[in-house]
Amino acid sequence: MAVYTEVSDEELTPFIASYGLGEVLSFKGIAEGVENSNYIVVTSEGRYILTLYEKRVAPEELPYFLGLMEHLAATGFACPTPLRDREGRNLRELCGRPAALVSFLEGLWVRRPKVEHCQLAGAALAQLHLAGQSFDMRRANSLGPTGWRPLFEGFADRAGEIAPDLSETLASEIGTIVSQWPTALPDGVIHADLFPDNLFFLDGRVSGVIDFYFACNDLLAYDIAICLNAWCFENDLSFNVTKSRAMLRGYQSVRPLETAERDALPVLCRGAALRFLLTRSFDWLHTPKEALVKPRNPSEYIRRLRFHQTARTAGAYGLETA
Amino acid sequence: MAVYTEVSDEELTPFIASYGLGEVLSFKGIAEGVENSNYIVVTSEGRYILTLYEKRVAPEELPYFLGLMEHLAATGFACPTPLRDREGRNLRELCGRPAALVSFLEGLWVRRPKVEHCQLAGAALAQLHLAGQSFDMRRANSLGPTGWRPLFEGFADRAGEIAPDLSETLASEIGTIVSQWPTALPDGVIHADLFPDNLFFLDGRVSGVIDFYFACNDLLAYDIAICLNAWCFENDLSFNVTKSRAMLRGYQSVRPLETAERDALPVLCRGAALRFLLTRSFDWLHTPKEALVKPRNPSEYIRRLRFHQTARTAGAYGLETA
Repeated sequence: MAVYTEVSDEELTPFIASYGLGEVLSFKGIAEGVENSNYIVVTSEGRYILTLYEKRVAPEELPYFLGLMEHLAATGFACPTPLRDREGRNLRELCGRPAALVSFLEGLWVRRPKVEHCQLAGAALAQLHLAGQSFDMRRANSLGPTGWRPLFEGFADRAGEIAPDLSETLASEIGTIVSQWPTALPDGVIHADLFPDNLFFLDGRVSGVIDFYFACNDLLAYDIAICLNAWCFENDLSFNVTKSRAMLRGYQSVRPLETAERDALPVLCRGAALRFLLTRSFDWLHTPKEALVKPRNPSEYIRRLRFHQTARTAGAYGLETA
Repeated sequence: MAVYTEVSDEELTPFIASYGLGEVLSFKGIAEGVENSNYIVVTSEGRYILTLYEKRVAPEELPYFLGLMEHLAATGFACPTPLRDREGRNLRELCGRPAALVSFLEGLWVRRPKVEHCQLAGAALAQLHLAGQSFDMRRANSLGPTGWRPLFEGFADRAGEIAPDLSETLASEIGTIVSQWPTALPDGVIHADLFPDNLFFLDGRVSGVIDFYFACNDLLAYDIAICLNAWCFENDLSFNVTKSRAMLRGYQSVRPLETAERDALPVLCRGAALRFLLTRSFDWLHTPKEALVKPRNPSEYIRRLRFHQTARTAGAYGLETA
């Protein structure tokens, strides 16, 4: 939950006026999202989300994220659409920070996803992948395999504070997973962070996807692996293969997986668990005590990683194998 | 900024349905308010605020607060109106906590109040006092003079962590102020926490008042003293007597002060500064390190208190004295 930047009415009013959206009737910070400051703006024309990009987002990458949202929305994929001001700009500055105003997406995220939500999430992810094929900007995945070792080196000396053998586990896992990492799979735009709080439902259907600030170009099946980690473990960290099977069924109802993608699922899932274990460990050890947002405990990803270590084939995720 | 309780869609949907307000289209936690969890709920009928009352609010006092809002709104005073469900209840339970749904109040709070805002705030406070005269429930002010010493005793041994001589200052101030405290002034319902973030403006006019969870029956002029503390000090903690004069002019345009109330302003202001110094000191020393909401530094109230110690008459606040 986060609002890092206080926006005064003197700054807000002319900013919103430059979009031609009528009078500002309400302005409230949202207690969700950990990277940026987000506000609901109600004007006489409608509801919008104002985002101020804080230090963790590189300003030079914003045109990719905003361009992607605009592109996806134009293809009919449901996501917030960046608005353009009267001079045609979708990226602005407010209170000394990069800022964007986007359309308000209705819907609720599901706190406790059920099997049917996993199936719908899988289908939405595949639709996102198809819609992204015609987007022509590119962004490398800074949190992909080549980024793991530098990330690990940023906290290796203190990893023991999280778990006694974490340093050895990570060093060994990075070596193993990178050596087995597939390269010849279909690639394209991936969301890379499609956790339940980034997918909204309305009336039992997906109403849209938010938070594209980790999106990048990478293996499409890696995005599925991230979702399997994000949606299919229960609170006790047991893996629910019924949810996993439903998610893969939903995905394949829109975009069938190639054999090589299915075969790669175990290592991709293992890599996805490693990626979140690395970033959460880094944040856990580097977040100052007085920070507004408490870092999330990384150790649940040690448990997820262990599950994927035992998976030999896509059968572990509920896919029938030859 | 605060959302302490996670509300699942399975709990939210039937709860909102019981008010007959249509389908829930959106549900977002608000990053404002420090005592309770607040959410914006958008339904097909309109916008509402859902509040879950957390541990610092005594459930048995909620009927007073909700009844007051309902009463004020019925008299035409602009504030959130508690909604009643199909069984006529305005106080409910959700996720194991007392909960209420209130109407959404448009408007923005002013981050940097100007003189004209102070005048309008003063007038709104007087309107609240008049509208409260016909409210027949009563609640004592637990943070009034009789509450100060027990509050102080809750942290006296650690007051030195805030300022070296704070313990002596507080012991002496409580004695002095309590001995001079007026008793025969007009009383009634006071807001008791009308800081700038609790007063909304729209189109240069007051659109309403929120957050009645400190409201109680006490001296009306004490509420003015709280507002003078809350609105009329600059960021450098200098006292802006132009703002103070405007606030008192605004108040008296609706409800003229009696001579005894004017005479009591210095001690009332000193007591108001003491009250916030006490509660902020208590919170500062008792809030666990891992708390979601960081306590506010109390020392600015030491500075405010010093100003009021030097005030001899209402002239210090811009009122002409005989």
